[in-house]
Amino acid sequence: MTATAEATNANLEQLIEQKLTEMLPRKLEEIEASKTPSMSIIATKGTLDWAYPPFILASTAAALGWDVTIFFTFYGLLLLKKDYDSEAKVSGLGNPAMPMKMPFGPEWFQNIEWPMPNVVMAGIPGFENLATTLMKKTFKNKGVASITELRELCVEAEVKLAACQMTVDVFGFSHDDFIPDCKDYVGAASFLPVAQKSDVCLFI
Amino acid sequence: MTATAEATNANLEQLIEQKLTEMLPRKLEEIEASKTPSMSIIATKGTLDWAYPPFILASTAAALGWDVTIFFTFYGLLLLKKDYDSEAKVSGLGNPAMPMKMPFGPEWFQNIEWPMPNVVMAGIPGFENLATTLMKKTFKNKGVASITELRELCVEAEVKLAACQMTVDVFGFSHDDFIPDCKDYVGAASFLPVAQKSDVCLFI
Amino acid sequence: MTATAEATNANLEQLIEQKLTEMLPRKLEEIEASKTPSMSIIATKGTLDWAYPPFILASTAAALGWDVTIFFTFYGLLLLKKDYDSEAKVSGLGNPAMPMKMPFGPEWFQNIEWPMPNVVMAGIPGFENLATTLMKKTFKNKGVASITELRELCVEAEVKLAACQMTVDVFGFSHDDFIPDCKDYVGAASFLPVAQKSDVCLFI
Repeated sequence: MTATAEATNANLEQLIEQKLTEMLPRKLEEIEASKTPSMSIIATKGTLDWAYPPFILASTAAALGWDVTIFFTFYGLLLLKKDYDSEAKVSGLGNPAMPMKMPFGPEWFQNIEWPMPNVVMAGIPGFENLATTLMKKTFKNKGVASITELRELCVEAEVKLAACQMTVDVFGFSHDDFIPDCKDYVGAASFLPVAQKSDVCLFI
Repeated sequence: MTATAEATNANLEQLIEQKLTEMLPRKLEEIEASKTPSMSIIATKGTLDWAYPPFILASTAAALGWDVTIFFTFYGLLLLKKDYDSEAKVSGLGNPAMPMKMPFGPEWFQNIEWPMPNVVMAGIPGFENLATTLMKKTFKNKGVASITELRELCVEAEVKLAACQMTVDVFGFSHDDFIPDCKDYVGAASFLPVAQKSDVCLFI
Repeated sequence: MTATAEATNANLEQLIEQKLTEMLPRKLEEIEASKTPSMSIIATKGTLDWAYPPFILASTAAALGWDVTIFFTFYGLLLLKKDYDSEAKVSGLGNPAMPMKMPFGPEWFQNIEWPMPNVVMAGIPGFENLATTLMKKTFKNKGVASITELRELCVEAEVKLAACQMTVDVFGFSHDDFIPDCKDYVGAASFLPVAQKSDVCLFI
């Protein structure tokens, strides 16, 4: 190679480096913007109140066009049960006494601010059932779908539902206990690579 | 195009590919390092003990110069209440009986290792109040700020506070119940794009 | 610069942009695929049931070759205690009444579907102990390791264990209470940069 060609190559390399440096941030943003956003959720709780967050977040993200996967494991496996709505109860977990108006009965009764169940009230027999009824009616009156309706919304929006086979084995469930829309029974090892590629991964 | 020009173009393409391959990992790291780190938190619990994690993590990240957003939803909406400190109670959730020394009273009394409330003790009337007092005093004695102080720290550090309008509607709150520092009342659909762009997104 | 040189430069820039656009997505995927996946977990709960998710997820990810860090804070600090297995109890948190078969006793007794503890049953003295025994035996019979065994697996697989020094101070623990495999006692400010670089970050 002649001295002139070498000089030209060095100049060329410098020019290429300079142009790449200049263009790269914009190109990266373009690539990022062209990708379908994705979310994966590890649903681990089975009570009625904690059933709302995974299904509301998943159906909202799916409505925005996101790719969504929910991995149901531990107590969260219950959210896949066919008869979920009739069995689930409110836990009051994380709730120090959330005031809610009673959504039925005479006006004076409705105007009482009922605290949602907290850990002390949970000790009172029957309170859990009252709280469950109260939450269901309030959500219904406010136009929020029931859990099985929200779950159906997720299925229609092509949210992928996967269940933890280890939990199924440990708790002695059978696949027949669950809605047929859950087609994948896998281990954490199969879910983790999905989580790795997700923009958002939540443990609920 | 002449044969020479084609050969030159092929050489040039090769050179560009080579330079790009060489430079890309370093350039990506530079771009990454030049970005402001970001965190988004979905705060869903309202009890005194579970109020600490979102505010401690948010104020710590903000102190490190991170961009932080907290989305208050479900029971977590309570964390925005004006009079939070006087109302909140410890739940003991996730706590099988954490030993704590009593931070007041005579020495023999202080030396008893009091378990923090667990689900069994939660059934004892008055225990929740005792546990709440115990946690507040212990945190204060150890120099940890109260929840409203930590919240104030977050506001000063420009942590963005957003509330879930759907939860406000369902539980029958009014915006007046909450601190004026929360300016955004939005839905999950507005929060998800923030979460997507965050380096860290936590469901607490 | 002569008109010819300018034209050449313009052509060159165009070529660089074209090549970059063409090659970048593939190159980024190559870089991504060559990286070791990573996960960071904030373990905040101390009850026996909620001890499983962090250790199962961490040991599974480590078995897949991931880089894993667990930051133990708040009630989660208890998961590092030397004598964890003999002290921990099931909370039933997030569990509306999970049916489990009794793993011991006569057959008629084993065939009863025992609900796991829920918040109402938690008020019954002795129930928490029964639920704890039931969960331990069931997990053992199904071939799931105990918490200290899972923890040991994590240590052998080089999962990094870090503890929150602030929690240690607030709850009055000493480093001697914990397994020596936890070598880092740090604050949230030290953990956040690890979380930022993780592909998956979970608050458990």
